[in-house]
Amino acid sequence: MARALALAARALGNSWPNPAVGCVIVRDGAVVGEGWTAPGGRPHAETQALDAAGAKASGATAYVSLEPCAHHGLTPPCADAMERAGIARCVIATGDPDPRVAGRGIARLRDAGIAVEVGLMADEASALNEGFFTRIARGRPWLTLKLASSLDGRIALGSGVSRWITGPEARGFVHGLRARHDAVMIGAGTARADDPTLDVREGHQTPRQPVRIVADSTLSLPLTGRLAATARHQPLWLLHGPGVARDRAQVFGDIGVELLGVPTGEGGVLDLVAAMGALGARGLTRVLCEGGGQLAAGLIRSGLVDELILMTSGKVIGGDGIPAVAAMGATDLGAVPRFVPIEHRQLGPDLMSRWRPAT
Amino acid sequence: MARALALAARALGNSWPNPAVGCVIVRDGAVVGEGWTAPGGRPHAETQALDAAGAKASGATAYVSLEPCAHHGLTPPCADAMERAGIARCVIATGDPDPRVAGRGIARLRDAGIAVEVGLMADEASALNEGFFTRIARGRPWLTLKLASSLDGRIALGSGVSRWITGPEARGFVHGLRARHDAVMIGAGTARADDPTLDVREGHQTPRQPVRIVADSTLSLPLTGRLAATARHQPLWLLHGPGVARDRAQVFGDIGVELLGVPTGEGGVLDLVAAMGALGARGLTRVLCEGGGQLAAGLIRSGLVDELILMTSGKVIGGDGIPAVAAMGATDLGAVPRFVPIEHRQLGPDLMSRWRPAT
Repeated sequence: MARALALAARALGNSWPNPAVGCVIVRDGAVVGEGWTAPGGRPHAETQALDAAGAKASGATAYVSLEPCAHHGLTPPCADAMERAGIARCVIATGDPDPRVAGRGIARLRDAGIAVEVGLMADEASALNEGFFTRIARGRPWLTLKLASSLDGRIALGSGVSRWITGPEARGFVHGLRARHDAVMIGAGTARADDPTLDVREGHQTPRQPVRIVADSTLSLPLTGRLAATARHQPLWLLHGPGVARDRAQVFGDIGVELLGVPTGEGGVLDLVAAMGALGARGLTRVLCEGGGQLAAGLIRSGLVDELILMTSGKVIGGDGIPAVAAMGATDLGAVPRFVPIEHRQLGPDLMSRWRPAT
Repeated sequence: MARALALAARALGNSWPNPAVGCVIVRDGAVVGEGWTAPGGRPHAETQALDAAGAKASGATAYVSLEPCAHHGLTPPCADAMERAGIARCVIATGDPDPRVAGRGIARLRDAGIAVEVGLMADEASALNEGFFTRIARGRPWLTLKLASSLDGRIALGSGVSRWITGPEARGFVHGLRARHDAVMIGAGTARADDPTLDVREGHQTPRQPVRIVADSTLSLPLTGRLAATARHQPLWLLHGPGVARDRAQVFGDIGVELLGVPTGEGGVLDLVAAMGALGARGLTRVLCEGGGQLAAGLIRSGLVDELILMTSGKVIGGDGIPAVAAMGATDLGAVPRFVPIEHRQLGPDLMSRWRPAT
C-alpha cells in the first residue's frame, strides 16, 4: 500500500477533476502490475495496473489507495475491470466520498466474489487526497497559501521590487509545490507588479502545467503581460466581479482566457468564499495561492487557508516594505486567525515552515 | 574542560564587567575543587576552585576556560594563587584578550614552573565569551536582538496591544535569555506602550537581575511607570541625547536612575554606535535588545546586531499592525541587511529561530 500511495502522489496536481490514485497488483509475493491516475484523470490507476499485469492479474491481490469506481462515467467501472481480470482480493486504503462511488465500489467488488479489505494506511490516503476530499465535502478546493517574506514579514521593497527575497533552494521548492497543485492563484496587484509566468520550472517537471488563476475583480490584467500572452499554452482563468466591460471580457475570451464571474462584497472586493466555490465547481482540487498581501489577507480572514507555507528569508527590509499580509483591522489579539506549526526546516539560507489552522 | 565551560556558562549575565570563567581542579583522576566567576565578577573562578580543593590542589591539574589573570586588580592575581596552591599543570581553553592579561597570565604560570597547555576546546570557550571578547576587541557589548512577531512580522496590533503574541514557552525562553545577558534594552516607545518590568522571572532565576536600559533620547520615560518605580531595586539606565532639561535629569537621578548621554544624529535620533560604545565603557559585555521596531531598525541598519532571535507566532495580525522592524528606506534588495539561520526549533505553538549576520 505504501507503494500504491507513492504512485498516487505522482498524480497530485495532474489528476483533477479526479482524485490521485495509485494501484499495485501482487501475485505470489511479486508485483505484476502498477499504475497511477493519468494526467487529466484518465485512464484510472486500476485500469493501467491491470493492463500491465495482463493474464497475471488472475488470482492476484490489488492494493488501491482509494475505493475503485462502480459507475459508468467516461470510462467503464474499475470494479468491473477487476472482476474481468480475475482479481481475487482487493485491499483498499480508504473509501471514496464521491456520492457516485461512496461504498458502491466496495459492494460491487464483493458482489463479484472478490475479498475486500478497507482501511490499510487510511490516514495517509486521506492526507494524500485532502484536495479531492475537500472538494467533495466542502465544495471547494484545498487551499495552500505560500508566503515568501523577509525576516520582518515583507514581500517586496516599498517600490514593489521582490526579486529575490528568498534563495534558489526556496524558489525551487515552490516550483515543486506548483507541480503538486492543480492551479496557482495570485491577486491582480501581484500580477501587475511581478508579471510572472507561474509555470513549473527550475528542475521540476510536470505532465500538466497548473492552471493560472488571477483574482482580478475589474479585469485589470494587462493584455501585454506574460500571463495573457501565454494563455493558449497554459490555462489562465480570471476571477472577476459583476459589471465588467463586455468588450474587455470579449478580448480576454479571444486570447484563450477563461472568465469566472463571482459576486463582490464591500468595496468591490471579490467574495472569496464564492470564488473558491466556483473553482471547486470547475473541478479543481488543490489550489496554491502565492499572494500578494491583499489576497492573502482576504483568504486568511475568510478562513479559507487549509495550509500556510512560510518561507522566511534572512533579509531585513523594514517597515516601509510591502507587508506579506495586508491590513485586517484586528482589534483583539485573542481573536486573530491562528495557525500551528507542523514542519520546519532550512532551505539554503532560508527557513521553510508549514502551518495548519488552529482548531 | 567541558565541565569548566559548563560552570562558566552559569556566570553568563552575572559576571560583568568580568568574563564568565569556569575552573575545575583534578588530582589523581578525581575532581577536588571547582568554581565559576561569582556575581559581579569576583571572586574569580580559580580562587573559588582552589579554596574548595584546599591542600588537595598540590600537584593537581587545573582546567580553566580562560587564561588566569596576572595583574593586581581588586583581587590578587590568580596565576600567583595557583603557584601558592602547588598546581602542577594548567590547561587553558583560550587566552584572555584583555590587554592587562594577554599572555602575561600564561607567562607568569610558566615562570612559576607550572606546565601550561593552551587551546583545549578553544572554539567553545571563545563562543561562550563572545560578549567579553567583543567588548575588548570592539569596545562595545555583544548585542542580541530578540523579535517576537506574528507570522506576518507584526509585534503588536495597530492599537499597540502586544500581550500576548507568543505562547508561554516562548516567553519563558526569553526570560532565560534575559538571565544570560548583562542588560536588557528597549526603546522609549516600547517602554511607554508596554510599561514592562524587564526582570527575570517565569521559573528562571538569576543571582543578579539584568540592568534595564531604555534608549530615550529626550528622557520621555514616565516617572509613574514600572521601570522608574523599580529603579532602586534593579538598575535602570537611560541613554539620552544632548540638551535634555536639567531638572528632568535631576529627578531621574534622585530616584536612582543612571543617565548616559550620547550624541544624536539626523532628526534627534540617538547615535547607536556611540550608545553601544558607552555601554561597553560602562562594563557591559552582553546586551539583549527586545525592541521595539524603531530601535530594532536602527541597530540592524547600524550593523550592531551580533545575533537575531526571532520568535514566530502562528497568529496573523495583518498589515495594520506594528512592524517588528520600522522603516529603513531600502531601495536595493541586494544591499539590505542579511542574516543566516544557525538554529531553529519549535517552542510550544511558536517557532524560535536564531540568525547571525551574513558575512
